Amino acid sequence: MTLTNLSLGGFAILIAVRGQLSLSLLLIFLAALADRFDGLIARKLNIESELGKQLDSMSDIISFGVAPALLLYQGILNLFGFPGLFFTVFYIGCGAYRLARFNITESNGYFTGMPITAAGCLLTLSFLGIPYLPPHSYLFIIIILSILMISSFKLKKI
Amino acid sequence: MTLTNLSLGGFAILIAVRGQLSLSLLLIFLAALADRFDGLIARKLNIESELGKQLDSMSDIISFGVAPALLLYQGILNLFGFPGLFFTVFYIGCGAYRLARFNITESNGYFTGMPITAAGCLLTLSFLGIPYLPPHSYLFIIIILSILMISSFKLKKI
Repeated sequence: MTLTNLSLGGFAILIAVRGQLSLSLLLIFLAALADRFDGLIARKLNIESELGKQLDSMSDIISFGVAPALLLYQGILNLFGFPGLFFTVFYIGCGAYRLARFNITESNGYFTGMPITAAGCLLTLSFLGIPYLPPHSYLFIIIILSILMISSFKLKKI
Repeated sequence: MTLTNLSLGGFAILIAVRGQLSLSLLLIFLAALADRFDGLIARKLNIESELGKQLDSMSDIISFGVAPALLLYQGILNLFGFPGLFFTVFYIGCGAYRLARFNITESNGYFTGMPITAAGCLLTLSFLGIPYLPPHSYLFIIIILSILMISSFKLKKI
């Protein structure tokens, strides 16, 4: 299942590069579903392994870090020249930091900062608003999601 | 330094998406240099932290997994339809597995399987041969590098 998540994320990236943005969006949402089931199944069967956890983080940076960032870059952020480029990379960097921090902390029933899965899904969802929202709002959306990931507010897990 | 590596990798991805492939290649090599110095400095100053190690893996999957894969996909593999797409994602998946396995094993002076940094640099180097090598050889190159990463031969560290 983790490999499904990772593969879907990888395909989402390449498909976004080819310009088929709606298909890329669909693949990211499928990756989110695979990620959700993956965690549930692993916990249910009690087969959470250290390798699985590491592989899961690698999948997350691809499916919810790089893929949604590329989708938004291709969809709208490329209009903004260097700031568009910079904040797309900034989002990926914040996501990587969020995952690295998560990997070294013990699970305690709370999220610290917004999980990259949530940020990636919100970013992907925001893609659907491109025809309706002012273009500049996307710079704000990606900056806010980036900062929410690296901030240290606590959120109870559901 | 780790953030330099990660940022260079992120920019390499976006620049490859924009079609500036030579610039993307340069950024990947700069990321490899940053990665090399990062490790040297951390060991010299004895500031190798668990967070640093995790962040380093995240940077590696971006700079030497996704970025070179995209570069080759944009440069030549897109000519091959689904197989081109599939083996590009396969390479990223093998790289993620290599890094996840590395993160859970103790360092013992040996590499197990080809490091993703080496595979990424070789893949990036091979890009320079596109005008001279037969196109199909690139499918072989990416498959062989992928398998070398997940194989379990031992190699003494230098």
